[in-house]
Amino acid sequence: MTVTKAAKTVNQAFVLHPGGKFAFEERHKPTLQSDRDVIVRVIATGLCGSDVHYWQHGRIGPYVVEAPITLGHESTGVVVESGSDVQGLAVGDRVALEPGIACNSCNHCRGGRYNLCQTMRFAATPPYDGTLATYYRVPAECCFKLPSHISLRDGTLIEPLSVAVHSCRLAGDMQEKSVVIFGAGPVGLLCCAVARAFGASTVVVVDVVPARLASALKYGATNTYQMSAEGADRNAADLLATASLDSGAHIALDATGAEPCLNCGIAALAKGGTFVQVGLGKPNLSLPVSQICDKELVFKGSFRYGPGDFKLAVGLLDSRRIRLDDLVTHEFPFSQAERAFENVAGRGGIKSVIYGPDVNEEEAKASLV
Amino acid sequence: MTVTKAAKTVNQAFVLHPGGKFAFEERHKPTLQSDRDVIVRVIATGLCGSDVHYWQHGRIGPYVVEAPITLGHESTGVVVESGSDVQGLAVGDRVALEPGIACNSCNHCRGGRYNLCQTMRFAATPPYDGTLATYYRVPAECCFKLPSHISLRDGTLIEPLSVAVHSCRLAGDMQEKSVVIFGAGPVGLLCCAVARAFGASTVVVVDVVPARLASALKYGATNTYQMSAEGADRNAADLLATASLDSGAHIALDATGAEPCLNCGIAALAKGGTFVQVGLGKPNLSLPVSQICDKELVFKGSFRYGPGDFKLAVGLLDSRRIRLDDLVTHEFPFSQAERAFENVAGRGGIKSVIYGPDVNEEEAKASLV
Amino acid sequence: MTVTKAAKTVNQAFVLHPGGKFAFEERHKPTLQSDRDVIVRVIATGLCGSDVHYWQHGRIGPYVVEAPITLGHESTGVVVESGSDVQGLAVGDRVALEPGIACNSCNHCRGGRYNLCQTMRFAATPPYDGTLATYYRVPAECCFKLPSHISLRDGTLIEPLSVAVHSCRLAGDMQEKSVVIFGAGPVGLLCCAVARAFGASTVVVVDVVPARLASALKYGATNTYQMSAEGADRNAADLLATASLDSGAHIALDATGAEPCLNCGIAALAKGGTFVQVGLGKPNLSLPVSQICDKELVFKGSFRYGPGDFKLAVGLLDSRRIRLDDLVTHEFPFSQAERAFENVAGRGGIKSVIYGPDVNEEEAKASLV
Amino acid sequence: MTVTKAAKTVNQAFVLHPGGKFAFEERHKPTLQSDRDVIVRVIATGLCGSDVHYWQHGRIGPYVVEAPITLGHESTGVVVESGSDVQGLAVGDRVALEPGIACNSCNHCRGGRYNLCQTMRFAATPPYDGTLATYYRVPAECCFKLPSHISLRDGTLIEPLSVAVHSCRLAGDMQEKSVVIFGAGPVGLLCCAVARAFGASTVVVVDVVPARLASALKYGATNTYQMSAEGADRNAADLLATASLDSGAHIALDATGAEPCLNCGIAALAKGGTFVQVGLGKPNLSLPVSQICDKELVFKGSFRYGPGDFKLAVGLLDSRRIRLDDLVTHEFPFSQAERAFENVAGRGGIKSVIYGPDVNEEEAKASLV
Repeated sequence: MTVTKAAKTVNQAFVLHPGGKFAFEERHKPTLQSDRDVIVRVIATGLCGSDVHYWQHGRIGPYVVEAPITLGHESTGVVVESGSDVQGLAVGDRVALEPGIACNSCNHCRGGRYNLCQTMRFAATPPYDGTLATYYRVPAECCFKLPSHISLRDGTLIEPLSVAVHSCRLAGDMQEKSVVIFGAGPVGLLCCAVARAFGASTVVVVDVVPARLASALKYGATNTYQMSAEGADRNAADLLATASLDSGAHIALDATGAEPCLNCGIAALAKGGTFVQVGLGKPNLSLPVSQICDKELVFKGSFRYGPGDFKLAVGLLDSRRIRLDDLVTHEFPFSQAERAFENVAGRGGIKSVIYGPDVNEEEAKASLV
Repeated sequence: MTVTKAAKTVNQAFVLHPGGKFAFEERHKPTLQSDRDVIVRVIATGLCGSDVHYWQHGRIGPYVVEAPITLGHESTGVVVESGSDVQGLAVGDRVALEPGIACNSCNHCRGGRYNLCQTMRFAATPPYDGTLATYYRVPAECCFKLPSHISLRDGTLIEPLSVAVHSCRLAGDMQEKSVVIFGAGPVGLLCCAVARAFGASTVVVVDVVPARLASALKYGATNTYQMSAEGADRNAADLLATASLDSGAHIALDATGAEPCLNCGIAALAKGGTFVQVGLGKPNLSLPVSQICDKELVFKGSFRYGPGDFKLAVGLLDSRRIRLDDLVTHEFPFSQAERAFENVAGRGGIKSVIYGPDVNEEEAKASLV
Repeated sequence: MTVTKAAKTVNQAFVLHPGGKFAFEERHKPTLQSDRDVIVRVIATGLCGSDVHYWQHGRIGPYVVEAPITLGHESTGVVVESGSDVQGLAVGDRVALEPGIACNSCNHCRGGRYNLCQTMRFAATPPYDGTLATYYRVPAECCFKLPSHISLRDGTLIEPLSVAVHSCRLAGDMQEKSVVIFGAGPVGLLCCAVARAFGASTVVVVDVVPARLASALKYGATNTYQMSAEGADRNAADLLATASLDSGAHIALDATGAEPCLNCGIAALAKGGTFVQVGLGKPNLSLPVSQICDKELVFKGSFRYGPGDFKLAVGLLDSRRIRLDDLVTHEFPFSQAERAFENVAGRGGIKSVIYGPDVNEEEAKASLV
Repeated sequence: MTVTKAAKTVNQAFVLHPGGKFAFEERHKPTLQSDRDVIVRVIATGLCGSDVHYWQHGRIGPYVVEAPITLGHESTGVVVESGSDVQGLAVGDRVALEPGIACNSCNHCRGGRYNLCQTMRFAATPPYDGTLATYYRVPAECCFKLPSHISLRDGTLIEPLSVAVHSCRLAGDMQEKSVVIFGAGPVGLLCCAVARAFGASTVVVVDVVPARLASALKYGATNTYQMSAEGADRNAADLLATASLDSGAHIALDATGAEPCLNCGIAALAKGGTFVQVGLGKPNLSLPVSQICDKELVFKGSFRYGPGDFKLAVGLLDSRRIRLDDLVTHEFPFSQAERAFENVAGRGGIKSVIYGPDVNEEEAKASLV
């Protein structure tokens, strides 16, 4: 892929306006703001449920679309400019972007939990623009070189893979443990793949859609279970029976945010087990607190990703311990970005990717190699 | 205190029958069942909310009073017999009893979490008899010698103190941290004292009863807050303001099980904070799961106590880093045991203690020294 | 394999006498001493360096052969008798033995570190007899069923595999980390296999014997390095260069106990790295303490195995994430046990196995399946 | 204390030249280099053994005085200028300085271990100038407001106190544990005070100088032990007997770097214990590695301080859980800085402090309040 277009100063952006209308607009090309910054020409961006949620609902919790905002934060690209202090990164490098710029100096950042930074500037979270644009600026520590066998298209999955890595690390040691994962969407499937790579001997993926469960088997699930309309205890007993886990599961991860799933997961855990909440759901959910006490469970919220997660995600791909084949099911040129949003809203396939504004068909193809 | 009565073979017991009627009955005096066992003559037993709950409701969750059962599990006594393999413990020793006999060989026991033992025989939890009797048998590892300045009466508080120790250890490092504790009953007050001993710089105790809040100040609370009928966010903001904790509390412990308290506690936590559920409440409670995720909180259930908790509780008393003065507010002879239950049911005072069946007035007084 | 010989009451033993002479002797067949005990007919026993050390030197540190002792502690066998309280284990089950019987009730045992039990009775550690006999008694928690595809011969490797598992767990998270392992004997090779199963992306095995390094590649080493007579810094630099680890290794494990290896390992570690000492060496070694401080390293001693290690070792075999092919290089009938000791003393092959006293050729062959 | 001198642009410095000669020199007053920087007028600086070592030996390990360097890194001062992004800090604030400026963006920094930053610029470590000057520039996160009852003179002890805090945190939970501390110099005494604040029930301080042991009792030691010329095992047995620690100590910290102390400390540890090396010694020391394995000890190097250590140190002072009275035994005006070095070299008192270049007698007195 040539980077001769780097000279361009036009920065095309796909912008969501308050009220829910999209527009293609021209923005200034970003410039280096520190010696550690790089400018990346965006090649591909995966769509996330949160992008679609902002479009459909105008907000997620306290984050409200009050001004026009560029969406997108699961991106890969090519470095086109780099600051004088940047090391280990050169113009032309193919990179995945970590889309949050932490202050690096508050207590949370200095203490090793920069995902909790009070002044985090996270792409596509109001008021910060995202990556559905020609160019994007990040500090060098937010760029991760792609393994040579990972395409720029599939590299967009490194961001959700890092979400899965973060959640699985929060769950603690998984060697020869049993893990139940709720939700067979992109994040659930990636959690499944990570849990297996982390040594889980049994990974039961739970969903209500049979087709999704079928695809879970491709990403390492040892068992699948289709949730029924029965209560949590019954579903828990049945899913444990499916996998011969008579004394309960060691770990449960929820990537749905649905109350029945949380209740089923807590019921399925063995004494001393750990539950990690990966996906967000409604603000308030009814939970079996007495079970959490009786079994002395730990229930953890997982928020984005932190130190080492992107690096580990890239490592898992580099060593081919995780494969991303067939996770990207839909591709759209920049001009049809809105169609990509519609596709995700309609739950089409697993993952949809939008190519950058000036990526032509030839480049898009090259990005698949 | 003389132990000449040790020769007696009569074992008086205060027994709860299914349906809720109490009776005084004679049982066989327990005998050593292994070389590591000891027989303890019970001197004093504190009443716990769970004892009263079994009396009033006949069950706690899955544990049902289906046959007559001796209640009581917060006891001290004097060793009157000891097995041939027992070391470091002699007839005549004044001890606090850890009232759970674990199998010591299952995975949980061997793995350092014997409180999760699948075959735990816990005093006063059906079908296992408790300690409201003349004698009680335990393995030596369940006996903890009282510091010489702790009376047999006040030593009954070592059991709830161990509950507090266990919960505070689960909460993690407390040095110069801020802690919010919900509930100013015995366990909440002991959590308060432990949190201060563990180095918490700010401990806010929350309750709805002003008199209870007043007593919290005696056990180390730096601030108190009276919950209002307002919502969780408002209460959280107000209690944080009370203690000048503008960026939230590091740790919250709940000893109430009440939904408004859990919601307020989660709202009051800073990013990255830890919530420990100490007291049980209704089986299902509505919780702000999205906050748990956004702030990447950890929510832990705490179940009884485990390795080292009794030892640490005794150590905290021995070093006088925790004082129990005035926590025992009511004392009853064995013959008036039912009145003690009525007193606790009516929320009389902080802690009620029942003396053993053959403890005369003189001994009871001696137990106060 | 039939177990009809279980009725036999003769217990043949291969006994080391003080002074270093071996003798075949008859001992009483062990009997169940608790309801949780089982009697195992020993089928195969691997020889360990410590067995040979007792033979050649009469002691290991404080443990002295002052009376005749049966050696051997890496054994598999078949359950021939089981106590009334034993669950999940039946007569006829093929099992690997965990050869240490902990008291299960001291602070270390209850606290989840039974390998530190003060009254541990460990097979073949004076004064406790080992497993080179017809029968051996253990509590049920010391029996681990063999996966069906693991032979009784190869199952003897589960004990040293558990040593490796314990050490690798002490080393902490290994996902996509770099690990240097000193020593390509049985324990070093098993550490290598475990490190890879635990997700290490780079595992450099170091030895002085080229043939051993060659075999390391069969057990997952990504790189090998032949120690030279140069100093620690030079060797460290060279071995890091071999594996392109320019900023140092995350983890080092030493299975040699040799001073040059420890020094090289510490020099090779990156800042914040962890060193685990697996094999024992001379009592005192010169170490670069200033490097340990400057790089804020952690240096851990590893002692045998603890909670969950055997279970995890069996799990790794069951899931075929670790393979033991070709590790057992020599087999001896019981009558030639002394030849097995000579073979190990002469560093013949990787692992030598001695079959049980009444195991005939047919059974020995069956044990290979 | 007035800060009217802030307008001055002259920056006096006390400079060590290669070869070991000191000189008073004028340097440019530092200027803000980022919006998060502050300029501090230095009021007082404590001398550290490392400062004296550079003077006497010209190097510490790889750090060599190859160019003139300003020494000093244990300083307090008053903020005289602050960048536009600085929050929670104002001109006139009395602060303790954390003297290391980390890059905040490398893997170690982002991962919560900024003390391991590869490009750390640490005051008074070649080639970076220290704080024995009129003014010093640091980013805001390196300034910690002094509690109102802590003088600017005593506040210089916050830096070594943070060293002690870091080491004690590395040692793990200390509640009701036994701790042995080698060395009763400033760092050893502060470790003693921190260990007590962290809840250690027994703290044995070990030294060879009786007068130093006497002062240890003022900072919380429960026992003291004077090392004899006997071997490590004998000294260990004797010191444990002193404190009735029959089964060994839980934790040992060494602030001497002396081989006999390390050997004695390791011998004194109970099984499963932790050793933290606080002070540096000779590069190579002979250690009882077989004991480290047999008892499964953890031996940790401690390097400076990391996230939260200064904050916790200040908190311990603020809550008066640690007192610094009488630790500063000598005070020198800037003009007599060399005499301060001589005093420390001659082991005079506990801690020597040098006042800043333009601090007059009246201010020096004020700094004591």
